[in-house]
Amino acid sequence: MAMTGSGDVVVAAGQCSVDEPDVTMRVAHQLLAGGATMLRGGAYKPRTKPTSFQGRGKEALATLARAKEETGLPIVTELLDVRDLADVLEVADMIQVGARNMQNTGMLKTLGQVDCPVLLKRAFSATIDETVAAAEYIWRGGNERVILCERGIRTFEPAYRFTLDLAAVPILQKRSGLPVWVDPSHAPGRRDLVLRLSLAAIAVGADGLIVEVDEDPPTARSDPDQQLYSADFAIYLGKVRGLVEAMGRRIA
Amino acid sequence: MAMTGSGDVVVAAGQCSVDEPDVTMRVAHQLLAGGATMLRGGAYKPRTKPTSFQGRGKEALATLARAKEETGLPIVTELLDVRDLADVLEVADMIQVGARNMQNTGMLKTLGQVDCPVLLKRAFSATIDETVAAAEYIWRGGNERVILCERGIRTFEPAYRFTLDLAAVPILQKRSGLPVWVDPSHAPGRRDLVLRLSLAAIAVGADGLIVEVDEDPPTARSDPDQQLYSADFAIYLGKVRGLVEAMGRRIA
Amino acid sequence: MAMTGSGDVVVAAGQCSVDEPDVTMRVAHQLLAGGATMLRGGAYKPRTKPTSFQGRGKEALATLARAKEETGLPIVTELLDVRDLADVLEVADMIQVGARNMQNTGMLKTLGQVDCPVLLKRAFSATIDETVAAAEYIWRGGNERVILCERGIRTFEPAYRFTLDLAAVPILQKRSGLPVWVDPSHAPGRRDLVLRLSLAAIAVGADGLIVEVDEDPPTARSDPDQQLYSADFAIYLGKVRGLVEAMGRRIA
Amino acid sequence: MAMTGSGDVVVAAGQCSVDEPDVTMRVAHQLLAGGATMLRGGAYKPRTKPTSFQGRGKEALATLARAKEETGLPIVTELLDVRDLADVLEVADMIQVGARNMQNTGMLKTLGQVDCPVLLKRAFSATIDETVAAAEYIWRGGNERVILCERGIRTFEPAYRFTLDLAAVPILQKRSGLPVWVDPSHAPGRRDLVLRLSLAAIAVGADGLIVEVDEDPPTARSDPDQQLYSADFAIYLGKVRGLVEAMGRRIA
Repeated sequence: MAMTGSGDVVVAAGQCSVDEPDVTMRVAHQLLAGGATMLRGGAYKPRTKPTSFQGRGKEALATLARAKEETGLPIVTELLDVRDLADVLEVADMIQVGARNMQNTGMLKTLGQVDCPVLLKRAFSATIDETVAAAEYIWRGGNERVILCERGIRTFEPAYRFTLDLAAVPILQKRSGLPVWVDPSHAPGRRDLVLRLSLAAIAVGADGLIVEVDEDPPTARSDPDQQLYSADFAIYLGKVRGLVEAMGRRIA
Repeated sequence: MAMTGSGDVVVAAGQCSVDEPDVTMRVAHQLLAGGATMLRGGAYKPRTKPTSFQGRGKEALATLARAKEETGLPIVTELLDVRDLADVLEVADMIQVGARNMQNTGMLKTLGQVDCPVLLKRAFSATIDETVAAAEYIWRGGNERVILCERGIRTFEPAYRFTLDLAAVPILQKRSGLPVWVDPSHAPGRRDLVLRLSLAAIAVGADGLIVEVDEDPPTARSDPDQQLYSADFAIYLGKVRGLVEAMGRRIA
Repeated sequence: MAMTGSGDVVVAAGQCSVDEPDVTMRVAHQLLAGGATMLRGGAYKPRTKPTSFQGRGKEALATLARAKEETGLPIVTELLDVRDLADVLEVADMIQVGARNMQNTGMLKTLGQVDCPVLLKRAFSATIDETVAAAEYIWRGGNERVILCERGIRTFEPAYRFTLDLAAVPILQKRSGLPVWVDPSHAPGRRDLVLRLSLAAIAVGADGLIVEVDEDPPTARSDPDQQLYSADFAIYLGKVRGLVEAMGRRIA
Repeated sequence: MAMTGSGDVVVAAGQCSVDEPDVTMRVAHQLLAGGATMLRGGAYKPRTKPTSFQGRGKEALATLARAKEETGLPIVTELLDVRDLADVLEVADMIQVGARNMQNTGMLKTLGQVDCPVLLKRAFSATIDETVAAAEYIWRGGNERVILCERGIRTFEPAYRFTLDLAAVPILQKRSGLPVWVDPSHAPGRRDLVLRLSLAAIAVGADGLIVEVDEDPPTARSDPDQQLYSADFAIYLGKVRGLVEAMGRRIA
C-alpha cells in the first residue's frame, strides 16, 4: 500500500455500513476485481440521530476480518469510541477518525501511541490549520503515519450535503507534509457526482480516494443515495485510472 | 439552582482554565459576592493545538471542589474524555459537553446514564436539528436533565471568532423543550462585546448565561482576550440583572 | 427623525411591497397610531426569480407619497435601479440600498451626490469591513447621512432564511461611526421570531428597527411568512418600547 | 469560439485591470501564442474600497479594441454600471457580469435585450438555484447566450479568498442547460493554486476557464497575488491542454 509521496494513488472502497456478511464478501470480491487497493467498511457508525442504525460493531469487525482474509485487501474502518480501540486494532490496517471526532483530543492522543496508520478526516467546518493541528496531536504521540482526508465542508448550498473543498488538498499537503485523500461520496451525498468529483480530486493532486460502494445502495442502512453500485465499480475505477495514468501516476 | 422553564436566569461564571488554587478561590468569592449562581471552571481543556495548555486535570477538579465548599456555588465543568467521567462526577453539579464533542456519540450515550445535569454546547457548525438530536442521545439513555447552549457558529466574518446565533435560542427551546443558555464569551472572543451580547441573550429569552471571568485575564493560560475581570463582575452582573428584572424575571 | 448618536430609536415599519393604495393607507394609519416613526414600503422589489412580483414601481411611489401626506410619516423606500433615482427622490426621505446592491459601486457613487439619507443594508455575506467600505463610497461623494443595517447573513442553518448577526451592530457602530439599524423581519423570515429579535436588537444597542408589517400578510405578494399583522403592531411596539425605555432610551 | 455543449473548452485569459496599452499588447500576443481563445481585461473594476484603483474605463476599452484588432482574439470584459453599456458593447464579444452584480436585476433585464453573449458570475454566496434564476432574468428578455461561471464561494477558511465549489459545475450545467466556466484565479487569490484548480475544473467537466494573466503581476494595480506571469502562460496552457486532450476534448 502506497501511502506517502510516492505518487501512487490509493483507492479505498467499500460499504458505508457493514451489515450482512455475505453481501460484504460479494462486494469485497467485486472491488478486488475492479482494482480497489483497500477495503473500507463501517462497523461503528456516527449517526446524527440516536434512532438511526448505529452499526453492527464487533460483528461487523469480524465480517471485515473475513473479507480481508478472502481478498487480501487491507482494511480501513472507523474508530468511533476510544473504548473500542482494542477491537478495532485487531482488524484494521488503517484506523479512520471521522469528521465529528477530528477534535476529540483524547482519541487523537491515544492514536498517537498505536502502531497503525490513521486516516484523519477534516471536520466539516475545520479550517486547514485546525486540521493540521489535529494531525499534530497524533504524530506528537509518536505515530507519524497520518493521512488527511478532505470530505466536504458545510456551506449554505442545499444542492449537496457538503461542499467539497478541493483547493484544500494542495494546501493541506504543503502545510502538513502528509498525504491527503478525498472522499467524493460523503461530500455531495449524491451518486451522480461521485465520478466527476473523483476525477477532480485526482486532477488537483489527491493521494487517495475513499469511496462508498455497496451491492444495492437503495437498501443500505446508511447513505443509500450516495453509494456506487458494486456492479459498476470496475467501470468507475477504469475512468479514474484513465485520468490517473494520463497524469503519469498509477493506482496501487 | 433553577434549570428549566421557571423563568429564572442562571448565571454560571468563572475561569476558562482553573490554574492556581488561590486565584480560583479569590475569583469564586468575587463571583459569589457579585451574584453568580454557579461556578464554571475548566479542568480539561479542548485545545486546537497539542502544544497549548491542556488544563490541570485532576488538580483543577480538586481546586473546584474546594471553591464549592468555600462558596457554596454549584460547579459546572467540562468532560473532555469519557475516561475521566468518574473524576468529574465527584465534583460537578453539571457536566459540560463542549462544542467539539457535541457529536461524540459514545460520550453522549454514557452521559445518558449518569445522574447529573448536562450542559450540551452546540457545535460551531451544527444545525439546530443536529443539536436537538445530540441532546436526544442523552435523554434516551434516561438522563432528562439536559441544557443546551448556543456559543456561536462559524461564519466568514473575521471581526469575531464565532457569530452568536441568537435566533437559535427560541427555536432550540421550542424544538427541544429544553432550557437554552448562551455563552457570550467564546462567541465573540472579545471582552468588549460580552456585556452587550449578554443583554441581547436575555432579551431574546435565554434561560442562562455562562460567562468567563478571571482575576487577570491577560495572564490567563487560555482565552486571555475574552474573559471579564473578576473585579468588574458585580458591575457587569448588575447591568444584566437590570434587564432581567425589567423583563419580569430574576437571576437565581 | 433621530438618526445619529442621540440615543433615540427609530422604528420604520410598513409593507414589504406596496400594492393596493387603500390597504397601504389603512396600514399607514395603524402604524402611526401604534407609534412608528417612519413608513417603509417597497415600490421596486429585488426578487430572486424574474417571474416573481417585481413591485408596482411608480404607482407605488405615488401611493407612498399619499400615505406620507395623510400621516406625516417620513418614507424609506428602496432604490433598485439607479435609472429610477429621480422618481424615488421625489418621495423618499431616506433611500434604501438593498443587500443585493451593497456593492453596486455605480449606485453608491451616485448616492454620494444626492441630498437624502441612505439606509445601506449589509449584503448577506459581506464582512463588516466590506460594509463599512460600501458606506465609504457614499460619504466620499459628499453625502454623509448614511445609516447601516444588519439584516442577517447566510449560513448553513435551514431553520431561518438568514442568521441575524447582532454582534455586528456594536462593531459596525465603532468602525463606521454611523448609526446601525436592524431588520428583524428578513433575517428569520418567520413572524414568530420578529419580536424576540427586535428586543435583542435593542438590547445589543441598535439605533433603529426596520420591520415589515402588512394588513393581511398571507395574501401579500412578497414575504407572506414574516410580516407582522398591522392590527398587532401597537402591541408589538409596546413591548419594544418597554425595553427601549427600561434601557433609558426612547422611540422617536 | 465554442460556447455551448460542443465539448470544446474555451480559455479566456488576460489582465485583471487593463492599464498601460503597451503592456496589454504584449500580454495579448503572448496569450495568442500560448493558445488562449479569448482575451479578458478589466476596464471598469468592482473594488471593495472607493480608494482602490477603479479601472481606466473608456481608455481601457480602447486598448482592448486595439488588442483585438492586433491579435484577432475576441474580448470579454465586465460591465459594472448599466450606464456604460453602449461603450462596452462597442468592444465586447462577451459581456461579463461580476459576482457583485449577479442579482442586479435591472442590469440583467437590460442584458436580456442586447445581442451579445453574457458571462454571468455566480455571486460568492449565491446558491445554485439563485444563480440559475439570475440567468433566467437574461434569457427571458430574449438573450439566450448566457454562460455561467463558478468563481468561488465565501466560507470560513482563511487560507484562500474563496472556496472553489467545483461540484457546482455539473449541477449548474444540469439545472440551467447552459455552459459553465470556472475562474481558477479569483477563488484562491493565490498564483500557486491556479494550475491545480484549472486541472480540477477540466476534470469536473467545465466548459471554459477564465484566468488572470499579466506581464508583471506584482506591479499590477489589482490582484497582484493571483495573476499568472504572461511569460509562463504557454507552459500553463500546455499542461491544461494535456488534460483536456486526455479527456477527449480540445481547447478551441
